[in-house]
Amino acid sequence: MQTTEFQNPNLADLDVDFLYHLGLDTSMDLEAMFGDVECVCMGGSPDRAKAFADKLAAEIGAEEPKPIGKTERCLLFKVGRVVVISHGMGMPSMLIFLHELKKLLDYAGAKNYKFMRIGTSGGVGVEPGTVIVADEALNGKLEPQYDQVVLGNTRSWETKLDSGLSEEILSTRGDIRAQIGKTMGTDDFYEGQGRLDGALNPGYNEADKMAYLKQAYDKGVRNIEMEAPAFAAFCLRAGIRGALVNVTLLDRLQGDQVTSTKEQLRQYSDNADEIVLKYLKTQLQK
Amino acid sequence: MQTTEFQNPNLADLDVDFLYHLGLDTSMDLEAMFGDVECVCMGGSPDRAKAFADKLAAEIGAEEPKPIGKTERCLLFKVGRVVVISHGMGMPSMLIFLHELKKLLDYAGAKNYKFMRIGTSGGVGVEPGTVIVADEALNGKLEPQYDQVVLGNTRSWETKLDSGLSEEILSTRGDIRAQIGKTMGTDDFYEGQGRLDGALNPGYNEADKMAYLKQAYDKGVRNIEMEAPAFAAFCLRAGIRGALVNVTLLDRLQGDQVTSTKEQLRQYSDNADEIVLKYLKTQLQK
Repeated sequence: MQTTEFQNPNLADLDVDFLYHLGLDTSMDLEAMFGDVECVCMGGSPDRAKAFADKLAAEIGAEEPKPIGKTERCLLFKVGRVVVISHGMGMPSMLIFLHELKKLLDYAGAKNYKFMRIGTSGGVGVEPGTVIVADEALNGKLEPQYDQVVLGNTRSWETKLDSGLSEEILSTRGDIRAQIGKTMGTDDFYEGQGRLDGALNPGYNEADKMAYLKQAYDKGVRNIEMEAPAFAAFCLRAGIRGALVNVTLLDRLQGDQVTSTKEQLRQYSDNADEIVLKYLKTQLQK
Repeated sequence: MQTTEFQNPNLADLDVDFLYHLGLDTSMDLEAMFGDVECVCMGGSPDRAKAFADKLAAEIGAEEPKPIGKTERCLLFKVGRVVVISHGMGMPSMLIFLHELKKLLDYAGAKNYKFMRIGTSGGVGVEPGTVIVADEALNGKLEPQYDQVVLGNTRSWETKLDSGLSEEILSTRGDIRAQIGKTMGTDDFYEGQGRLDGALNPGYNEADKMAYLKQAYDKGVRNIEMEAPAFAAFCLRAGIRGALVNVTLLDRLQGDQVTSTKEQLRQYSDNADEIVLKYLKTQLQK
């Protein structure tokens, strides 16, 4: 593999590169398996990855997709020219897959592929079921950056997302409630997102929480999840066009708990899937 | 539920508490389901949780365990008086389950339960297959603390582990290579652990990496994974006796890649399981 500025020159030293968490390695014919990939669609849950892969297969008339590689840490499907994969919850888990997916596709010779995260999130001042396509990611300190500890020191990376891609995706929304907004990503679901219903005494109260959420709203945050800053920073560093398409399951200005019925939650989650499926359809016809 | 200093007084305000990621809630008879629990054994991978639950069931002559609750985000089993659960990879993912498990067991009226993480890790100066029982967790800056961003500000928590429990667990090791040591937990598998084989140009070289790993070794670090500081801090705050029992799959002073065969990896992973199973046997006979 020829390395570009967006690739790691150290990889040239490896005889075989074991993509440990995918259960794939460079002794396999990765070009035959993944050389034509144009887009990776990822989300936290293996169930949702499977559901999305099934919908995409139905859309393009492909067979029911089967998982490829090791299924212990993620589910990975290939449907036409699209990879669908689960990345677990949180930035540390997702980063493992971002690294291994980029290596996989570069070894396979795939070109100009995009990364899209299709996820669930808590809304901030928007109706549950609204899809937020992010133009920028903020961290838990409401800063537009991803902080990473490397060899004991902190490095900070920018977290802008590809505005052209976000607008293209948003334009396929049809009747689905969707908008551009900033997405905050935190390292904790309970105290990291200002919830009062964790297991431990949080050391703050309802008024403190609301002040924080309102501050987030005023900075343009419309939803909160656990992956956005690392995703945006990785895509920028990697020279990959990336998009964050998250549906909101509740409005955090109204409460902390996810109390919707299973049926409602499925409908909400379908909203994000549908927008991306429509976008992919415009691309795959090219 | 009566709240103690280790519980969250805000929970008294909830009519029903939805433990969203477990798929369980307080409208169920949690006391009948979990009231007798004495120990929670957790690990990253659902496959390993299933394998451990099966081994424990065989050990105590119980039926093959079936998952309880929602299986989308984790697998949760109950085997005798032990809960076995997968928590995904990384501190953000694990913290979700720590919060929901503690709430679950407190609502169920379980008393004096312990938390044990049985995981896989990279060793530092120890032979692959060695089990490290941690006496303290360090973060990626080699500090004995867990830093958490809450409402935009950083809070730091201590990360000592219960030395009595660690020694009790270690004493059951028999022929298995096992020792006490410090466990470092990072927020990234590739650059966060000084690997040179990520997808991106890491901006450091082999000499920089070795200097960092040797510094870690000199501070007592014998293995590196992605959960230790948050686990230790949570247990301390929650008043729960906690133990970290991680097997090493490679020696990071020798390289970055996990190149062992599937068979070797299974044997290594069995080492950690066996020590905990032996420990549980001494407890369950009481």
